Amino acid sequence: MQSFPSLSDIQQAADRILPYAHKTPVITSQTINDISGAEVYFKCENFQKVGAFKFRGAANAILSLSDEDKINGVVTHSSGNHAQAVALAAKLCGIKAYIVMPKTAPSVKKAAVMGYGAEIIECSPTLESRESTLAEVINRTGGTLIHPYNDYRVIAGQATASKELIEEVGDLDFILAPVGGGGLLSGTALLTHYILPKAKVIAGEPIMADDAFRSLQAGEIIPSINPKTIADGLLTSLGDKTFPIINQYVDEIITVSEEEIVASMKLIWERVKIVIEPSAAVPVGAFLKEKEKFKNKKVGIILSGGNVDLQHLPF
Amino acid sequence: MQSFPSLSDIQQAADRILPYAHKTPVITSQTINDISGAEVYFKCENFQKVGAFKFRGAANAILSLSDEDKINGVVTHSSGNHAQAVALAAKLCGIKAYIVMPKTAPSVKKAAVMGYGAEIIECSPTLESRESTLAEVINRTGGTLIHPYNDYRVIAGQATASKELIEEVGDLDFILAPVGGGGLLSGTALLTHYILPKAKVIAGEPIMADDAFRSLQAGEIIPSINPKTIADGLLTSLGDKTFPIINQYVDEIITVSEEEIVASMKLIWERVKIVIEPSAAVPVGAFLKEKEKFKNKKVGIILSGGNVDLQHLPF
Repeated sequence: MQSFPSLSDIQQAADRILPYAHKTPVITSQTINDISGAEVYFKCENFQKVGAFKFRGAANAILSLSDEDKINGVVTHSSGNHAQAVALAAKLCGIKAYIVMPKTAPSVKKAAVMGYGAEIIECSPTLESRESTLAEVINRTGGTLIHPYNDYRVIAGQATASKELIEEVGDLDFILAPVGGGGLLSGTALLTHYILPKAKVIAGEPIMADDAFRSLQAGEIIPSINPKTIADGLLTSLGDKTFPIINQYVDEIITVSEEEIVASMKLIWERVKIVIEPSAAVPVGAFLKEKEKFKNKKVGIILSGGNVDLQHLPF
Repeated sequence: MQSFPSLSDIQQAADRILPYAHKTPVITSQTINDISGAEVYFKCENFQKVGAFKFRGAANAILSLSDEDKINGVVTHSSGNHAQAVALAAKLCGIKAYIVMPKTAPSVKKAAVMGYGAEIIECSPTLESRESTLAEVINRTGGTLIHPYNDYRVIAGQATASKELIEEVGDLDFILAPVGGGGLLSGTALLTHYILPKAKVIAGEPIMADDAFRSLQAGEIIPSINPKTIADGLLTSLGDKTFPIINQYVDEIITVSEEEIVASMKLIWERVKIVIEPSAAVPVGAFLKEKEKFKNKKVGIILSGGNVDLQHLPF
């Protein structure tokens, strides 16, 4: 069994993606500090390439490929930020990308992926169709699968966000991130364990897709069944590579309601004046829900992305 | 006749507001650069205190008051960003603020002003009622009027935004700002004339409130009659202090349609991931409308504010 990514793996990931990814800004807000009584530092991955942290992991995985692997390109399935992240990272490396997307994916997302020169292969919007289509594409092209989260190279890439945050802000008491499949959260927890072990890592998760919360309680992976949440980046369940890391290094998962997610998103837009997507509002909601815990503490919150459909806002 | 604010006046304004105002970030966007073929630097006054550049001018004017003047407080009329700017600046100086607002102003704006401890005096939503109420309040309180734009201390304060922009970015070819009453634009034009005279200063103005465009053509102030634009910060007409500066130092005014304003606002939200108000989108629209002019040039654009009602978005 392969062991968890090491600090050296994460450092190498940071070096590898440095020429391609943005070192995103860390911002503060007097209003949020006043509301919460904490000292909050937002790591703005909404300003990352393709508008989400996903670019970090995809870029690290693709840049790690051998020259031989690169010949046949890369394959993934995603209807969200990971699709664009793989498409752009592949383009920057000059290799082919094949993205399996459900027929029902919004045309604006398909257009963005095609804009990066990737090939889209449509499947039906079921897990079965997705899996069989993915297998077929890998078989046909010989491309390497870049999994959205259940991949140590992806996890090491996502860890670079909290690495930058801690290097910039220093002595944080808490770091909060959202959890879906667990790529960002496991990377955050590992990196924090390595370089700032006294800090607690806490995840925010939608109550309506609380598989990580329940998995941590049970001590084993309990997938979500038909999760439905506005935080559409967090619908996936933990994988066998992310769960053990989260189980070992994450201190707590705080679940939030749909109303809390929307209210937190609106608060950030209105008062911090930045555009974040619902998934990014989830750890903000977790923070505000239990603000007594964070009072007078230094808190880092990873705002995971900023891709929203302005035609369909929840407020 | 008093002469235009000098470079020294603007430098003093910068020193005066330094402990209170944010040095706002300057950001870039690969997408906007790709779309336009220019190298664009956004000065993010949407991240300023109260969410708009207006805080700079109000703070400079209020901090310039003599101790004697401070006793009776300050008075202004505004239903927008200037109201909050005066209220907050007065609060920070520990003096009273009386804000004349139309009865019809949104309750959220009244609440924000009261939140800073200012007293609101309501008037009817007519110019006549506003003027008479303002005169009555000044008479009753002995407070000093802080005009939203037709005041050299306010103009010198607004000039500090472009001062920071030029000091950070250096050799810009163009600087774009919106124009309403002309406080920001006249300050920008003066400061640019002093420290980067080879740069051209261009304003964006809504076609539906194009008094500055027509005034510049006529060589005299031609006020707007019942202007109606989504850019509600730009409804006012030039004053006798802002017009002569603009007439002398602004190179061009580009007018934009309501559709261009909304499209530019949406573009910034979607691609730059920051929240700007319609008035801030006006110079962006002007820039995109005439992008051939700016090709391969270094362009600074002042994003004037980010206060929007998320319940009533134009898209």
